[in-house]
Amino acid sequence: MAPRFTVTYFVRAADAAEAKARALDIALEQTVEIPRDAVPKGYVEDEILGRLENLEQDPAGRPGYLAAISYSEDDVGNDFLQFLNIVFGNSSIKPGLKVEDIGLSPGILDLCKGPRHGIAGLRSRAGIGDSPLLMSAIKPVGLSTTALARLAHDFALGGMHYVKDDHGLVDQRTSPFEERLRACVDAVGEANAKRGGRTSYVPNVTGPATAVIERAKQAQEAGAGAVMIAPALTGYDVVRTLAADPDFTLPIISHPAFSGANVVSPDCGFSHRTFFGTLHRLMGADAVIYPNFGGRFGFTREECLSIARVCAADIGGPKTIVAAPGGGMTFARLPEMRAAYGNDVMYLIGGALLQEPDLVEACRRFIEAARGAGSARDSTDSVGGSSVPGTVTG
Amino acid sequence: MAPRFTVTYFVRAADAAEAKARALDIALEQTVEIPRDAVPKGYVEDEILGRLENLEQDPAGRPGYLAAISYSEDDVGNDFLQFLNIVFGNSSIKPGLKVEDIGLSPGILDLCKGPRHGIAGLRSRAGIGDSPLLMSAIKPVGLSTTALARLAHDFALGGMHYVKDDHGLVDQRTSPFEERLRACVDAVGEANAKRGGRTSYVPNVTGPATAVIERAKQAQEAGAGAVMIAPALTGYDVVRTLAADPDFTLPIISHPAFSGANVVSPDCGFSHRTFFGTLHRLMGADAVIYPNFGGRFGFTREECLSIARVCAADIGGPKTIVAAPGGGMTFARLPEMRAAYGNDVMYLIGGALLQEPDLVEACRRFIEAARGAGSARDSTDSVGGSSVPGTVTG
Repeated sequence: MAPRFTVTYFVRAADAAEAKARALDIALEQTVEIPRDAVPKGYVEDEILGRLENLEQDPAGRPGYLAAISYSEDDVGNDFLQFLNIVFGNSSIKPGLKVEDIGLSPGILDLCKGPRHGIAGLRSRAGIGDSPLLMSAIKPVGLSTTALARLAHDFALGGMHYVKDDHGLVDQRTSPFEERLRACVDAVGEANAKRGGRTSYVPNVTGPATAVIERAKQAQEAGAGAVMIAPALTGYDVVRTLAADPDFTLPIISHPAFSGANVVSPDCGFSHRTFFGTLHRLMGADAVIYPNFGGRFGFTREECLSIARVCAADIGGPKTIVAAPGGGMTFARLPEMRAAYGNDVMYLIGGALLQEPDLVEACRRFIEAARGAGSARDSTDSVGGSSVPGTVTG
Repeated sequence: MAPRFTVTYFVRAADAAEAKARALDIALEQTVEIPRDAVPKGYVEDEILGRLENLEQDPAGRPGYLAAISYSEDDVGNDFLQFLNIVFGNSSIKPGLKVEDIGLSPGILDLCKGPRHGIAGLRSRAGIGDSPLLMSAIKPVGLSTTALARLAHDFALGGMHYVKDDHGLVDQRTSPFEERLRACVDAVGEANAKRGGRTSYVPNVTGPATAVIERAKQAQEAGAGAVMIAPALTGYDVVRTLAADPDFTLPIISHPAFSGANVVSPDCGFSHRTFFGTLHRLMGADAVIYPNFGGRFGFTREECLSIARVCAADIGGPKTIVAAPGGGMTFARLPEMRAAYGNDVMYLIGGALLQEPDLVEACRRFIEAARGAGSARDSTDSVGGSSVPGTVTG
C-alpha cells in the first residue's frame, strides 16, 4: 500500500447521515468516479478509492461536518495537477463543499519541493535581517516604459526591497515586456548604485502559455531579482515547474488575480489558509500576495492571519515563505498590521505612495514607519499561533 | 482610440448609489488599480481606465444591479490571460460580484480564433449528420492499461463516437500515458475495423506544465482522434495555444475539473453561460464538458441550456461548439435531455454503461435510445432560444 494524504472538507449537511453520504460520495467522485457497486475489487477498491477517515460536526459551528478523506499517492502519478484534481477536481462543482485543510504525505512533499528561497532567501537578497520586507508596484498600465522605469528607479532610491510590475503589465504596446524588463533593471540598478541599495526588480511574467517560462528565464538573464506569476491564470503547475528548474534561480512571487472564486464564498472553494498558504507553498512560491484585511477586499483579519501562519509553519519540507498582504495599504495602517503580522511579512504598498508628491521621500517615510511601527506583537492571535494544519501525515 | 469590449457584472448593492460606487471601483480595479485621483490624465484616463457604460437594476430580481463596463483592447496586449485578468482578475476576489456576460470586440476575436473544428468538425470526424454526438469514458484510475484498452475497444465496438480517458487518468504507474495512448488507439482501431466504425480515442493530456502541449502532439502522432484538457488546472491559455497551433489538428474537449468555484456560488465567479460558453469558445474548445442538470451536481436546467445556447450562438467569428453535459447520465434520462438539448449536443455517459453486464450491447442500446428519444423538442426554452449574449460590440 502506498502512503496516503488526507483532505479535510467542510460538508454542508443537516445531520450526520447526510454528511456521511456526501463524504462517501466525495471519496468516489474524486477517485474512481463510478457508482460504488461498479468499483473493481482488489487494487482499485483497496488502494485508489478515497477512504473516509473521520467525520465530525464542524467545530466552527457552521451548519455541517468536517470529513477527512484519505487518498493514495499512487493516484497522483507524480503530477501536481492530478494532486489538485484529487483534492477538489469534480467536487469543486458541488455546492456546500469546501477544502479546509490538506494533510501532506511523503510523496506529495517529494513531488512538491517548495520554494527555492523562501522568506530567508528574500531577506538575504534584500540584505536585511529579521524585519518586514517591503514591496511596491509600478503602475498603471498605459504609462510608457520610460515613465514606468522612472517609478521603479524612485521606489528603489526610496529603499523598497522589491519593486514589481503591476499584475496588469504584460506586453502592451505602450510598454512591451522586453523593453520594460531592460529599462527597469537598468533604472533599479542605477538607483542601487546611488544609494548603495539592493533593491530587486520583479517583472510580471504571466503571459501566453508558451511564453511564461521563457519570460522568467529572460528576466533572470537580464538581471531581475524575482518574477511574479498569477497561477490561477497560468495554471498551477507553472510555478512548481520553475521552482524545480535547476536553470532557474530567481524567487517567485505569486499574484492572486482570477483566483477569488476559490476563496470568497463560504459555500465552495478552499479555506484561505489552504489555498494561499498550503497550495502556494507546495507550488513553490517564495511570497504569496493576497488582499489584506481592512482594505478594499473582504478578507477578515483571522483569514489573513491563517494564511500567514501556514506560510510560517513546519509542513514537513518546503521552506517557510512570506505572506504579502496588499490592497489598500496606507501609512496609517502600519501599526495595526505590525501588531497582527509581526516581522515575518512583506508589506505591499502601491497606490498610497503613488499619491504622494515626492515618491522617493514617501518611500523613505514609509520604511521609517514600517521599522518603527509597534514592535510589540498581539500575542493572542498573531502569526506565531500554534495550531497549524498542513503537517505531514501518512 | 482602440475598440472596446464590454463586461457586464452583477453587482450586489442595496441601492443605485452603492451599485454605482462599486461599478466605478471595478472600472479602476480592473485597469489602473490606483486611486481615482492618481490616474494620469490623457491616454491612461481616456483609453485604459474602465468606463461605466450602463447601470440598471438586475432584471432577474437579484438584490443588485447589472453594470456594463467597457475596456480598451490596448490594455489586452494581445494576451488571452490579460484579457481574463481585465475581465475579472482582482475583482474576482470581491464578494457580491459576478461576470454575467462579455460583449466581444474585433481585437478579442482576432486574438481568439476559437476552435479549429467545432461541432461540425466533431460530427464529420464521427461520420454522422445532424444528430447527437456520443461520448464515453474509460475508467477508473487503477485499472491496468490492458483493462482500460479493453473498455475503449468495447465502447468503440458498441458505436460510441468518442471514447475519452477519465479525467483522473494521467501518467500513473498502473497505466502510463504513452503506454495507454498506444494501447487505446490500437484497441479503438481494432474495433473500428471490425465494425466499420469511426470512433475516436480521446486521451487526457492534462499534466505537468511542460508536458501538456507535448502530450497533445504525441496523441496526434499516435492516431488519437481528439484530446481532453482541464483548463482550470493547466491554465486558460493552453487550449487557445493548441487550437491556434498550425501543427496541431485534433479537436480539443475541455473538462471542468477544478473550475467549480467559478460558477457554483451566486455571490462570485461567472454566470454558467459565460464561463462554460463564451470563455471556452474563445479558448478554442470544440466540446465543453459540464455537469448536467438533474444529475449528481447542482446545475439547473436553465443554467445548462444557457451554456448550450452560447455554444450554438453567432458570437462573431469562432465556430459553434458542442455542449457535452455529463454526470449522472442514464438511459432513463435520454428523452428529457433530447427535449431540452435537441440534436446539437454531445451525450457523455460513463458509469451507467459500466454497470451493465455486456458493455458492447449496452452501448448499442444506448445509441438506439439516443436516436429514438423524443424527436420533438421543447419549443419554449430549449437550446434554439433567441436571447444570446456574447455578440460583437465596439
